[in-house]
Amino acid sequence: MRRFNEVHNKVIRMASPFIIGGIEAGGTKFLCGIADEGGTILDEIRIPTTTPVKTLAAASDFFTQAAVRHGRIAALGIGSFGPLSLRPAACDYGCITSTPKPGWRGTDLLEHFRHALGVPMVLDTDVNAAAAGEFLFGGGRGLDSFCYVTVGTGIGVGLLINGAPSGGANHLEGGHIRVLRAPGDATFPGICPYHGDCLEGLACGPAMRARWGKPAEDLADDHPAWPMAAHYLAELCATLTYTVRPERIIVGGGVMRPHMYSLVRKALEHKLAGYDASLSDLDMVDYITRPTAGSSAGFTGALALAFRHVTGRWPMHWTVRAPDCLKPESLHS
Amino acid sequence: MRRFNEVHNKVIRMASPFIIGGIEAGGTKFLCGIADEGGTILDEIRIPTTTPVKTLAAASDFFTQAAVRHGRIAALGIGSFGPLSLRPAACDYGCITSTPKPGWRGTDLLEHFRHALGVPMVLDTDVNAAAAGEFLFGGGRGLDSFCYVTVGTGIGVGLLINGAPSGGANHLEGGHIRVLRAPGDATFPGICPYHGDCLEGLACGPAMRARWGKPAEDLADDHPAWPMAAHYLAELCATLTYTVRPERIIVGGGVMRPHMYSLVRKALEHKLAGYDASLSDLDMVDYITRPTAGSSAGFTGALALAFRHVTGRWPMHWTVRAPDCLKPESLHS
Repeated sequence: MRRFNEVHNKVIRMASPFIIGGIEAGGTKFLCGIADEGGTILDEIRIPTTTPVKTLAAASDFFTQAAVRHGRIAALGIGSFGPLSLRPAACDYGCITSTPKPGWRGTDLLEHFRHALGVPMVLDTDVNAAAAGEFLFGGGRGLDSFCYVTVGTGIGVGLLINGAPSGGANHLEGGHIRVLRAPGDATFPGICPYHGDCLEGLACGPAMRARWGKPAEDLADDHPAWPMAAHYLAELCATLTYTVRPERIIVGGGVMRPHMYSLVRKALEHKLAGYDASLSDLDMVDYITRPTAGSSAGFTGALALAFRHVTGRWPMHWTVRAPDCLKPESLHS
Repeated sequence: MRRFNEVHNKVIRMASPFIIGGIEAGGTKFLCGIADEGGTILDEIRIPTTTPVKTLAAASDFFTQAAVRHGRIAALGIGSFGPLSLRPAACDYGCITSTPKPGWRGTDLLEHFRHALGVPMVLDTDVNAAAAGEFLFGGGRGLDSFCYVTVGTGIGVGLLINGAPSGGANHLEGGHIRVLRAPGDATFPGICPYHGDCLEGLACGPAMRARWGKPAEDLADDHPAWPMAAHYLAELCATLTYTVRPERIIVGGGVMRPHMYSLVRKALEHKLAGYDASLSDLDMVDYITRPTAGSSAGFTGALALAFRHVTGRWPMHWTVRAPDCLKPESLHS
């Protein structure tokens, strides 16, 4: 399969060939894989997220064995659930910090893989890795700045600014911003253990289940839950618009449904209230979009982070698309 | 006066010497000046902001005459009040858009100076220019990411991420985020003509005057206005913390008073509510600080933007400090 064009082919052939590793570390599964510099997946594995000891050992074993078959990986990119400590000067740098996930609090991801593999590593949030995937293969292509929002068991916000994943001094927690209450939602206390009624506490999947007495997926499209959820997501989109002014906000995750996009766009338009001509002129259909890099954008994004760690640039020549890369038939073609 | 060190001196001497121009375009005055590549101010002028025709003509005349004395400027940096259209593809790129300032709506800043001077230009918001000043000469030194907030007749938020002023797709409007009402402030409608009770509508200087019946500067330090204002600014700081996670938030502007900093820090600590160890460990005194680059940070920042436009890098070797650069005795030393 042809995976890169002549120009990039030439550029890459000037350096030694290398392979990279990527991990999408999620709350239910770890996707691990290695790829060549052209973006072809050479090997991959899906490991259930159980205990840190078991899951991390299975992951590092995979990379150790893959290295026997394919050679030493030049860098490992990890996009992980969190919260993560991402400030290199912090004593817990590279750890999963205050996660509610049993047994995972304090897990030192970087130390484990440094000890097991001894290769250069780059760690970022799962949402920033997914944003990297969208940047290369989805709705972020050609953009300098965009936000990636996922609404599921939590609400995560990834940020790509000036073509680089951005975390400021540490990981972002855009899901925890305060929001104005939706009409008719004055009394629900919210479920965030820290803030109660922050955005995540009011609008993530478990919050919807707590408020309406059944899971979001069981609510009909015309249930009042949806305009209310759209209100809260529009609050987030308005805040992101004012604070970072992205070119696009890509919203995905298990709670989003097709009809939610028009609800969020309409609510956002109302909230921006015609402030500033350039905001009034926003094409909402182009501004609030669904993810298009597929369900493993975080995995390909992690590989791309590793490529960038080695070369200092994004693998813009990769033509592999996230939705395909984990299908067995495309893995070794 | 020695203005750069040996290393930078050598780097600069490899290229031809050049001079740059800077404008801090404010609602009451335009500060215009030129500087050499070492950061020495060669000439400057303060022009009252009256009508666009008069003010812009006086500014471009200054640069035309300065060029006769000192040579052609290599680039002009402008930090301006707004809102500005900063998206190069927009038909109004370079214009002041929906300002309430009489006569200035639609003023095409870039077109005026392009026509009058014909030099490369870089335009950014007044707050981003001031953030550049703080980055070089103040509390932003050595930081990769920080926010610069000014609280006065409006509330402006500048953002420097990965060492570059950030505006995403256009200028930032962090002052217009929605905030939770402070205790005891349920009925004041807010003064923002677009949003009513957005942050600026509730907490800028004119909002304080409208709420309390007298200007902020006439309110005693123990007036309840201050804890309330601190609540609103802490809402902004919490939102910035969650969405962009800066290393520091520098808060200045006419409304800020010395005792406000501890009020904002305390309110912010309460709002973050112990979420995430790295936030609990934040040293609030180091996190929320006052500006230290002086009142003309926006002017020196505009010059620095011009320098960066020419060379592709910040003038880290400049030793000129903002508070001094407009004092006559230091201008030509």
